[in-house]
Amino acid sequence: MKDKISNQPGSWLQKDFLLKNQTARTLFHDFAALMPIIDYHNHLSPQQIAEDSCFQNLTQAWLYGDHYKWRAMRTNGIAEKYCTGDASDFEKFEQWAATVPYTLRNPLYHWTHLELQRYFDITETLSPATAKKIYSECSEKLQSKEYSIRNLLRKMNVKILCTTDDPVDSLEYHKQIKKDGFEIKILPAFRPDKAMDIDNNALFNQYINKLESVANVSIHSFEDYLNTLKSRHDFFAANGCCVSDHGLSEIYADDYTEKEIISIFIKARSGNELTAEEKRKFKSAMLVLFAQWDCEKGWVQQYHLGALRNNNSRMMQQLGADTGWDSIGDFKYGQSLAKFLNKLDSKNKLARTIIYNLNPADNAMMATMIGNFNDGSIAAKVQWGAAWWFMDQKDGIKQHLDVLSNMGLLSRFVGMLTDSRSFLSFPRHEYFRRILCNTFGEEIENGELPNDMEWIGKIVQDICYTNTKKYFGW
Amino acid sequence: MKDKISNQPGSWLQKDFLLKNQTARTLFHDFAALMPIIDYHNHLSPQQIAEDSCFQNLTQAWLYGDHYKWRAMRTNGIAEKYCTGDASDFEKFEQWAATVPYTLRNPLYHWTHLELQRYFDITETLSPATAKKIYSECSEKLQSKEYSIRNLLRKMNVKILCTTDDPVDSLEYHKQIKKDGFEIKILPAFRPDKAMDIDNNALFNQYINKLESVANVSIHSFEDYLNTLKSRHDFFAANGCCVSDHGLSEIYADDYTEKEIISIFIKARSGNELTAEEKRKFKSAMLVLFAQWDCEKGWVQQYHLGALRNNNSRMMQQLGADTGWDSIGDFKYGQSLAKFLNKLDSKNKLARTIIYNLNPADNAMMATMIGNFNDGSIAAKVQWGAAWWFMDQKDGIKQHLDVLSNMGLLSRFVGMLTDSRSFLSFPRHEYFRRILCNTFGEEIENGELPNDMEWIGKIVQDICYTNTKKYFGW
Amino acid sequence: MKDKISNQPGSWLQKDFLLKNQTARTLFHDFAALMPIIDYHNHLSPQQIAEDSCFQNLTQAWLYGDHYKWRAMRTNGIAEKYCTGDASDFEKFEQWAATVPYTLRNPLYHWTHLELQRYFDITETLSPATAKKIYSECSEKLQSKEYSIRNLLRKMNVKILCTTDDPVDSLEYHKQIKKDGFEIKILPAFRPDKAMDIDNNALFNQYINKLESVANVSIHSFEDYLNTLKSRHDFFAANGCCVSDHGLSEIYADDYTEKEIISIFIKARSGNELTAEEKRKFKSAMLVLFAQWDCEKGWVQQYHLGALRNNNSRMMQQLGADTGWDSIGDFKYGQSLAKFLNKLDSKNKLARTIIYNLNPADNAMMATMIGNFNDGSIAAKVQWGAAWWFMDQKDGIKQHLDVLSNMGLLSRFVGMLTDSRSFLSFPRHEYFRRILCNTFGEEIENGELPNDMEWIGKIVQDICYTNTKKYFGW
Repeated sequence: MKDKISNQPGSWLQKDFLLKNQTARTLFHDFAALMPIIDYHNHLSPQQIAEDSCFQNLTQAWLYGDHYKWRAMRTNGIAEKYCTGDASDFEKFEQWAATVPYTLRNPLYHWTHLELQRYFDITETLSPATAKKIYSECSEKLQSKEYSIRNLLRKMNVKILCTTDDPVDSLEYHKQIKKDGFEIKILPAFRPDKAMDIDNNALFNQYINKLESVANVSIHSFEDYLNTLKSRHDFFAANGCCVSDHGLSEIYADDYTEKEIISIFIKARSGNELTAEEKRKFKSAMLVLFAQWDCEKGWVQQYHLGALRNNNSRMMQQLGADTGWDSIGDFKYGQSLAKFLNKLDSKNKLARTIIYNLNPADNAMMATMIGNFNDGSIAAKVQWGAAWWFMDQKDGIKQHLDVLSNMGLLSRFVGMLTDSRSFLSFPRHEYFRRILCNTFGEEIENGELPNDMEWIGKIVQDICYTNTKKYFGW
Repeated sequence: MKDKISNQPGSWLQKDFLLKNQTARTLFHDFAALMPIIDYHNHLSPQQIAEDSCFQNLTQAWLYGDHYKWRAMRTNGIAEKYCTGDASDFEKFEQWAATVPYTLRNPLYHWTHLELQRYFDITETLSPATAKKIYSECSEKLQSKEYSIRNLLRKMNVKILCTTDDPVDSLEYHKQIKKDGFEIKILPAFRPDKAMDIDNNALFNQYINKLESVANVSIHSFEDYLNTLKSRHDFFAANGCCVSDHGLSEIYADDYTEKEIISIFIKARSGNELTAEEKRKFKSAMLVLFAQWDCEKGWVQQYHLGALRNNNSRMMQQLGADTGWDSIGDFKYGQSLAKFLNKLDSKNKLARTIIYNLNPADNAMMATMIGNFNDGSIAAKVQWGAAWWFMDQKDGIKQHLDVLSNMGLLSRFVGMLTDSRSFLSFPRHEYFRRILCNTFGEEIENGELPNDMEWIGKIVQDICYTNTKKYFGW
Repeated sequence: MKDKISNQPGSWLQKDFLLKNQTARTLFHDFAALMPIIDYHNHLSPQQIAEDSCFQNLTQAWLYGDHYKWRAMRTNGIAEKYCTGDASDFEKFEQWAATVPYTLRNPLYHWTHLELQRYFDITETLSPATAKKIYSECSEKLQSKEYSIRNLLRKMNVKILCTTDDPVDSLEYHKQIKKDGFEIKILPAFRPDKAMDIDNNALFNQYINKLESVANVSIHSFEDYLNTLKSRHDFFAANGCCVSDHGLSEIYADDYTEKEIISIFIKARSGNELTAEEKRKFKSAMLVLFAQWDCEKGWVQQYHLGALRNNNSRMMQQLGADTGWDSIGDFKYGQSLAKFLNKLDSKNKLARTIIYNLNPADNAMMATMIGNFNDGSIAAKVQWGAAWWFMDQKDGIKQHLDVLSNMGLLSRFVGMLTDSRSFLSFPRHEYFRRILCNTFGEEIENGELPNDMEWIGKIVQDICYTNTKKYFGW
């Protein structure tokens, strides 16, 4: 592959892609690129890793489950049949290949071609003209052992990754992966969103029923409920989990009493409709409880805030959640986030915490919020998480790095994660690293930073790898 | 004119203004500049087009009705007398000329000098020193037939334009223009803001009385009201209208019943004061009704959201609305916008829709909202409209293009419109096109995009013209 | 010093730091750098100026009271002992020196090294390796008369500065400074935040008691309260004050009656708890009253809006307010700000006003709000204040300049202020000026502005000095 990639500065997607001067190139090639990957939050399938299967073709690897690509295709006027529908895998690929040239300037365009280069040694651009050839070549490779799920991870120099798992999950695949002695650490993460989502009574009770069955208990009271959830938290810990994650529109931090929460739970469990106030109180209480457990176990807790979800009810009914109908909300949660973190901090129950916002209008609020709870006990205990989802693109990453730099300490940042459902998405770490190195490189050559390559090289490596390793205690 | 404009890179407002490299220049001169203009939303006077009159002087063309310039003059310490008051046309011009050098870095500075170059072949900068000469030269030209209203449009290669018209408008001038066989298509747009603005009971009833008189009916019930409005919608359609537009602070999407709306209407019609809740319900209902009509007729509907209007009551009383006392609001309407669009989509009543935000803090919310309702039925059915009003400037346009690129498909964008009250404002299309071409040109020469001039040239032309033509079905 | 600073373009912090082309360099060195400083809002100690004392070491000058540095240290994992605790001055300095290399890209990194260069002729970077040497060298200098408080101000060519003072302040130090005939004008500013902060009843009553004692009156009624506050306003005016300042999360503009405010005051004065609504009404009323006095006296009034304060109650209890636990709020106050300004304007009681926002998401709202009340009576009567606190950094300043340019008149801007508690912070004016000059320089060499150095040089000098002098009437 390396030979095929152009060295000519300014030519498309060449060796020094995104690296605009020599200092940036040195920082990337001699420092950042050497570091392994810790992908501490993603949505990869532990089953696929356990089974170490092969994809049969590029559509399976790229288009099954990728709502980013589906959204682009739909916006390009491609019918649902070719996104999630019953078209053949090759037909779907053809429609994707027809869409790619229309994704110019979208991160999908860079991701697609980086993935073709890095995994498959293909430097051509994807379009209807090249669709058939690229599909054949990649699919053939994917079917070979060299491209098995585990080998795809090895190829990217991944050392550790955390999946995202529901408290009811049996973690059977994580156990199996461990038993196999797979040299890449695959850890579960505790994501109890459904355990606090009391908006839909029926779904909430279904969830509790499932929890009863998994834990082999009966849940009649809030106490039962907490004990059972706590036992799952313990079970996750026993299986290597040291990270929780929460996906929420906003942080709930309403005042409540324990007595109120007990009643609200009984009311919901009895199938009675809750008021909006009761729902918020319940969510507020659960957030605090989960956070206390995280602190007690020394876990890192993550909060992904700000998505406006399931906006298209017609498609939600047809395809279910997480199929490309979510967007960026404009929720205001600065005060409640401060109140929530303060509640934990004042009880000495604030775990290491990473908060992510989806709306860039909240960047400054987030970047300064973290400083309110960094009390010198450990470096950058509360972190502002990397640019996420719609913000995970060149400008979003740059803005995150800039705002974090201006309002906090970039040097202490735990860096990039994919948050992805795709085993081919790891070049996003490289993409992030190139943007990071270019940022430093430009300022060094401008005279805005000293030309101290040893120190800045170290900071780059910290952000790419070392900070994460230390922060999570790995 | 062309001879007078400098070719020297880096000199002020020369041939390659805003085009920072050769690729950008090629994209602009060989692709973008060749395309005609479709100005699908503006506030030009159909009467002036019908009459094909001439301006008597540059003050009439530039300063009558231009609240952008008035705001700048007032901020520069110029008394109202010289903005909207009874000073002579030349006195007003002198004050504007004295203000222009203080507008450096404001879009007015670029617009002013682009307009002098493109319409009048004048390359001098406007200042007190040049005021008299420029005023004489331009006024003389404006009085000639070559500078009649219609010739000003022809000079800019305009093919189609849509004005903004109230449902009570007789459309007499649109009819006359059509009868004249004017080769530029001048279409009305249905803007029923007053028909749903129930905030001021007296004004609302005055409006209904006017509607009664125009439609020659009596309006006693909500049913009467709807039937009459619908008949105006039909009348607009019969006169070539295929676009609606709504100017709102935010989207209203409160729940309501038909019965409630009927009562609210009767209450308002009887002169009784409405509660805040009733007002929101009524507006919510009207928005849905208008949208359904738009869908049924296959129109494109536009929503201009986020202005905080009529902030200065002293000047409002003195000069009326739209005289320069509006600003950018910080309304939060993400959830209601999603709810509104979903309500229509789930009934299969969502027309092609263009939404515009005024506050750039809402860019990400808007850019991702549109994707929630792009279902593959047609390319980019829901569009995020071009940077508008206060955002219609170099940085605002660039940010819009970048956010749209990162979060959607720039390639499918319907592009620029003037939204202007001025017949001399069409160089804003050129301004937009230069920014667009420079954006692509820089990324091509950086190696962030392939150097495929045929394809990217086509995309540029799509955004400048072809997408609009197809989207509106012209 | 000048000899030691490198002239080599692109080397770290050299003579042309932040000035990327020759035009920018000319604008800075031949225009901006010549202007004296008016620092019209800061938190410097009048006592220290009156006493003209010397700092005993660099820790006293840099680390006593600087919550910016403390936040960085805490985020870097430095214990509180070394920030505000009982470690020795040199121990504290060592920890700060260990933190500085981690502040790369934070404004602290630039400020620190600019201050070392400008005050102490030191061009080395601060780190553990240089800590001891720099500490000794600077501390020795600081102890000399050449580095007394007043000489630090003289060194920076300061002409006028305004401190921030509570209505209960005796202004004794301001009087003494004046009596001394100090050639730099040191003026008080009226900051009555505590006089309207009715959230905590006990603190509010304590404040009133203090006011009674200072003014030697008894306060039983709201009328007494107003009369006493008004007498302090008069007293401040008699001592040269011509500026007020308000630090608020948001603008309060609820409706109220005089009668309500009288009752609310009595209720609070009697120690009874107020409702949230009563608190907002009271604050709304006080804001209007203060603003009217400001207008009557021809003062300039300032509003610093948007901070989310005292978020960490544990540290608040330990260290008190303003010790580094505040952040950027996401309050929505566009409508209330418009309502407040309009209320004053419509009574002809709107003083010259400067509004500052802390959250950059409000930039566009603020930049356009000011235009609503600029009525031509004087140039730029309502100003959007300079990038402040967390926004006072390279990107924040640039964004402020760009948004102000695009949506208002940059040329009429009253420019920079330090808002600082540090006598070594005046190079921030230089920093601002370099960014300003580079902004113009780049656009001139791009051909986006005419190469008219006389005019643009004048505009630069206006923004750096002359506009402020005229606006405040000095």
